[in-house]
Amino acid sequence: MTQENIVRAIWIAEDDPRCVMVIDQRRLPFELSVRELRTGDDAIDAIRDMTVRGAPLIGITAGYGLYLATLDAPRDERFDHHIADAALRLKRARPTAVNLAWSIDRMLAAMAPCGSAGEKIAAALAMAGRMEREDVEGCRRIGEYGLPLIEEIARRKEGARVNLLTHCNAGWLACVEHGTATAPIYAAFDRGIDLHVWVDETRPRNQGARLTAWELARRGVPHTVIPDNTGGHLMQHGLVDMVIVGCDRATATGDICNKIGTYLKALAARDNNIPFHVALPASTFDWSIRDGVAEIEIEERGGDEVRFMEGASGEAVMVVPEGTPVANYGFDVTPARLVTGLITDRGLCRADEADIRRLFPEIARR
Amino acid sequence: MTQENIVRAIWIAEDDPRCVMVIDQRRLPFELSVRELRTGDDAIDAIRDMTVRGAPLIGITAGYGLYLATLDAPRDERFDHHIADAALRLKRARPTAVNLAWSIDRMLAAMAPCGSAGEKIAAALAMAGRMEREDVEGCRRIGEYGLPLIEEIARRKEGARVNLLTHCNAGWLACVEHGTATAPIYAAFDRGIDLHVWVDETRPRNQGARLTAWELARRGVPHTVIPDNTGGHLMQHGLVDMVIVGCDRATATGDICNKIGTYLKALAARDNNIPFHVALPASTFDWSIRDGVAEIEIEERGGDEVRFMEGASGEAVMVVPEGTPVANYGFDVTPARLVTGLITDRGLCRADEADIRRLFPEIARR
Repeated sequence: MTQENIVRAIWIAEDDPRCVMVIDQRRLPFELSVRELRTGDDAIDAIRDMTVRGAPLIGITAGYGLYLATLDAPRDERFDHHIADAALRLKRARPTAVNLAWSIDRMLAAMAPCGSAGEKIAAALAMAGRMEREDVEGCRRIGEYGLPLIEEIARRKEGARVNLLTHCNAGWLACVEHGTATAPIYAAFDRGIDLHVWVDETRPRNQGARLTAWELARRGVPHTVIPDNTGGHLMQHGLVDMVIVGCDRATATGDICNKIGTYLKALAARDNNIPFHVALPASTFDWSIRDGVAEIEIEERGGDEVRFMEGASGEAVMVVPEGTPVANYGFDVTPARLVTGLITDRGLCRADEADIRRLFPEIARR
Repeated sequence: MTQENIVRAIWIAEDDPRCVMVIDQRRLPFELSVRELRTGDDAIDAIRDMTVRGAPLIGITAGYGLYLATLDAPRDERFDHHIADAALRLKRARPTAVNLAWSIDRMLAAMAPCGSAGEKIAAALAMAGRMEREDVEGCRRIGEYGLPLIEEIARRKEGARVNLLTHCNAGWLACVEHGTATAPIYAAFDRGIDLHVWVDETRPRNQGARLTAWELARRGVPHTVIPDNTGGHLMQHGLVDMVIVGCDRATATGDICNKIGTYLKALAARDNNIPFHVALPASTFDWSIRDGVAEIEIEERGGDEVRFMEGASGEAVMVVPEGTPVANYGFDVTPARLVTGLITDRGLCRADEADIRRLFPEIARR
């Protein structure tokens, strides 16, 4: 693919099925650079150093990572041990995204019935590709199911511009195509609805300012970047019609673990009677967890992400006094009571256990 | 004063009563640089370009600015016109801080009875100095009245560390000495209470990371800088015992206009049953306003404060894609219903009209 053609976050190299290509998202928006993953360890590094980020994309990268690990593996009795070890290390590459474990478990299940190393390699590649296609289709459906929510607001406003607010990046850069939170936005924009997106900067890594703004600009969607402090004020003054965010992990009861700061926006939306919707594929649910605040381990990341800010030309500037202690929690949990509704690849539901189980009856039967 | 001795935000030059000295707060924490104000226009510039910031300090700088304008003024029949014009322009230098108008009105009232230009100059200098001393004494009393709130938490926690959270900078850099929100913190720290302060970074200008962290470090107060997105998560997990912030403008009914993002922290504090206190001197009340959200005009500042981040060595890096639209609202309004209590220079009160009037009976009589 030439740079102009890149509209996916991950793909197999055209000329080499042993090479997986990903956009190096740490360099966006200032440079569109592509990184080659050739080993399982390459994939672990790319997940850990946030070359790739976003729950769905992390899961798919991990899947391809396990496929790459099968290529690395010695073709003897050590093969299975090598794969098991890679699977464990891939699962641990980031602590919060449930998609990681979900993806690796599917990969292992696909390989389990196979006899030879060659069969296992083929099964791994097939399953990684299948998960990738499922993600694209799932995001497409999230867009389709979320679209009527925006259409309804546009109708109510009699064609006046619809203002959406989003936090972090849950766009195609976080998935493969379409994105989750952005899918209904792109769908509505493509239908000609007059809309505008308030994009939270999303400190400390600025995924909103760097990635969401870049994505929306590529598609021509009107948007404005705001400091994370701003959303409450906008909501108080009628400047936000709907909040729509992605999700890194959802509980069986509808609690939402997403980028740090999401909870504050949910509180402001509730205080101002503004709908707060969460877009997520089935794979984001962690059916084993019932109390998100109490049970979800929140990743603490290195302090330099807070201390330094990276700019256009790649140089980082220090933004706190020398030696200042900092804390860097990656996510927070928005309790289900603050969530108006979930936009899933199976349809819309309320953020409560009964309605979630209605959409996912196979879980209810467990 | 030598640099090491500077513990005030504004002072008259020792060797020249025609020169007012202020810390250039735009260069902190990386450089402690002092700027000389010699004319009324110098003061207007310093207020407008945020060399000085913080509601009380803005008021006192404006007061000294009008004094400097009397020194500029032609000593003839144009004197009064010159002063009236400077007063108007000083009042308009920043739109949100009610202290500006309050300070200028006191200055004009002090000069009104005087006959000669010389008398007016003397009256202006005397009133500016009086406002400065009143501010120091007011902040000292805020510390004294707020101290028991922190002592009570320390008692309840049986000596375990008390965790406070603050937003922006309402320290001595925002006033003259002591600060408002920081006054009870310094008072408690000086009494030997084991405490720690979570400091919101406070995008887009990072006054928390740059100024509050610098102030607290100078005094040896344990603190941690956090992205503005973080406070809600900390509160959900019992890591914040009390929120204490300053205020740029308070209504007669207890609504609080403060740095953008304050409202989000107040919502999180309420959601987690954490006390949310606002420290402010009498001068911050705008008795003419009853509905803060509806009536207070919120200053919109230039977009480059969002687009660029300034680092240690003074260079700025761009943090959004080229050409990205941004919005930069300076303040938001926290409704009184979310405020646990006010810590004023007259004592503690609830954020409701009746209790505020109990502390300020002279207003009640109006």
